[in-house]
Amino acid sequence: MKLVSYLSQGRVRSGVIVDDKYIADLNNSCYEFYLERGEDEIFVERFCNALVPSDMLGVIQAGERAMELISNLIGWVRNREELLLKIDEVKLKAPLQRANTVRDFLAFRGHVEASYKRRGQQIPEEWFKIPIYYKGDPAAFYGHMENVPWPSYSNALDFELEIGAIVYRKGVNIEKRKARDYILGYTIFNDFSARDIQMREMTCLLGPAKGKDFANGLGPWIVTKDEVGEIKGLRAYASVDGEKWCDTKAEDMQWSFEDMISYVSQDEYIRPGDIFGSGTISGCCGLDNGRLLRPGSLVELYIEKIGILVNRVVK
Amino acid sequence: MKLVSYLSQGRVRSGVIVDDKYIADLNNSCYEFYLERGEDEIFVERFCNALVPSDMLGVIQAGERAMELISNLIGWVRNREELLLKIDEVKLKAPLQRANTVRDFLAFRGHVEASYKRRGQQIPEEWFKIPIYYKGDPAAFYGHMENVPWPSYSNALDFELEIGAIVYRKGVNIEKRKARDYILGYTIFNDFSARDIQMREMTCLLGPAKGKDFANGLGPWIVTKDEVGEIKGLRAYASVDGEKWCDTKAEDMQWSFEDMISYVSQDEYIRPGDIFGSGTISGCCGLDNGRLLRPGSLVELYIEKIGILVNRVVK
Repeated sequence: MKLVSYLSQGRVRSGVIVDDKYIADLNNSCYEFYLERGEDEIFVERFCNALVPSDMLGVIQAGERAMELISNLIGWVRNREELLLKIDEVKLKAPLQRANTVRDFLAFRGHVEASYKRRGQQIPEEWFKIPIYYKGDPAAFYGHMENVPWPSYSNALDFELEIGAIVYRKGVNIEKRKARDYILGYTIFNDFSARDIQMREMTCLLGPAKGKDFANGLGPWIVTKDEVGEIKGLRAYASVDGEKWCDTKAEDMQWSFEDMISYVSQDEYIRPGDIFGSGTISGCCGLDNGRLLRPGSLVELYIEKIGILVNRVVK
Repeated sequence: MKLVSYLSQGRVRSGVIVDDKYIADLNNSCYEFYLERGEDEIFVERFCNALVPSDMLGVIQAGERAMELISNLIGWVRNREELLLKIDEVKLKAPLQRANTVRDFLAFRGHVEASYKRRGQQIPEEWFKIPIYYKGDPAAFYGHMENVPWPSYSNALDFELEIGAIVYRKGVNIEKRKARDYILGYTIFNDFSARDIQMREMTCLLGPAKGKDFANGLGPWIVTKDEVGEIKGLRAYASVDGEKWCDTKAEDMQWSFEDMISYVSQDEYIRPGDIFGSGTISGCCGLDNGRLLRPGSLVELYIEKIGILVNRVVK
C-alpha cells in the first residue's frame, strides 16, 4: 500500500493510492464503507475518526488495526468512482505533517568516510560500534512538489538523500530479529542542511540544530514494507536542476534499520509515528560532491520501489 | 498557578494546586463548574475535553484560553470540598507525560567551562555566539518521587539540575523582546545522563542520544511565569543521599530563555508543549563535582520559587 497526505479544501487529509492512479480519502471511504453495511452514522463517524482520522500520524497510531481496515477499503473503493480522486489533480503534502519523533542516523559508510576525509580525519572508532544519530524537528516536513523556504540565516544550503523508515508500533528493548515488525514502511527523506550554521553548531559537540531543523522533504508517500522488501541494493539517484549528482545503489549500510531500532529501544520506547532516517546514501548530497544548492534549485530524489520526491528551494 | 499531573485510578490526570494544600482535577472541575451554570452535559463534556483534557499537553495546547479558565476554576473550586484532593494523599506524575519537543541547551558558563577544562580545552568560540542545544526524547519523563530505572547499558549515571521553560503558544521568527509571551512557566528539569555512552556518542559529532534519552526528571509542577519572575538570581541546590553537591544561584547564564526562543524560532515554529532546558546550573551535576550516582541514590533538586524534585535511581 501507498499512504499519502493530500490537500482538500485547504486542509490536509490522509489517503491511500488505488490502482496507481487514484487517491481514496481514508476517513471518507471508511465512513461510506460502514454506512453501506448499515451501521449507525454517529458510531461510524467516531469509529473512523479513531482508526483513520484525517491526520496520518493518527492513522499510524492506530497501527495494524488501521492497516487491515485500509486494505479492505482499497478493495471496496476501487469501484466507487465518486470516492476516487485522480492523483494528477491533487496537491500532495508530506505523508506525515507531524511525526512523533525524527531520529536521523549515519548508516552509509561512503558518506561518513567522505565527510571525515574532507577534514583530513578518519572515521571515529565509535561509528563502527554503535549507530550514531541526532534528533530532528518533528513538524517541519515538505511534500512532493512543495517549495522549501531557504533559511534566512544560511548561505550554504544542501540536501541529503535518505531512506526514511516509519514506525507503527510501540515497543521497548526490541531484539534485532523482531525489529522489522515495528516498521510500517518506507519513504524518501530529504534532510535539507544549512552547512554553514551546522558546522558552527557541531563545534560545541551537541550536534546539529538550526543546521537541520528548518526543513525535511518527505514523500511522495509511505510505501508499506511488503512492497519494498530489502533496503540493501535499492537503486537511488539525486538530480539537481536536471543534472545527476549521484546514481547509485544503497549498498554500504553499516547499520540496518533493524540495528537502529534495537539500539534506540534499549530502555526507551519507540512509538508509532517515529521516523528513522538512514543518513545520506553515499554520494547523494552536495557535501559529498563539493557542491551546494542555489536559490531556485530543483532537487529530485529517487529511490527504487518508493518513488520520486521533488522539491524546489526558494529564497 | 501551579499545574500538576497526578495519578487517579491508575490513569494520569491534569490538575491545579489550590491554596498550597489541595489538587483540583481540571477536567472534573470544569465539568461541574459549567453544569452549575446550567449548560448542557454533552456540550460541557466536549468543551472541557477541548480546553482542559486529562493530559497536560492538551491543556497547554489550549493556551491562554485554558489558563483563563483554570484561573476562574481555582476561585470557584476552593469552596467545593468534594472536588479537592489533599496533595499528600496523591501520587504526582511528571507535569507533562508527553512534550511536543525537548530542546536542551548549555546556557550556564560555569558548567561549560568545567566540562571543557576537564578535557584540557577552552570553551569553543561558537558557544559565545549562538545558543547550543540538542533535542531529547519527548516522552521519557519521571515526576516527583518516581523511581528512575538505571539504564542497563550504563555504568556511569549522573544527573543535571536545570530549569525547564514550557512553551504554550505557537510562533515563528520571534523577537527576543517578545519571547517571554510564549512561555507559560517553569519547572525543574533533571537531565539524567549516562556519561559513558554519552561520551562515546559525542565523538561522532551528532551529539548525545542514548546518553540522555532514557529519562528526564520533570516537576514537581509547572509554575506560571508570573509567580517565578526573573530566572537570574534564583537559588538552586542539588543533594544526593542528603549531601549537598551544589548550593548556588542561577547567575552565569550566557543565554536567557528569550535568547533561546528567538534563536530556535528562526524559520522554524515553536509550539505549545515545547520544553526548553537551561542546561546544568553551574556546579549542579556529578560531572562538575567529579562524582557519579550509585544504584539507589536519592537525587533532590531545588529551585527557588519552583520547588523540590526528588527521584531515586534504581538498578
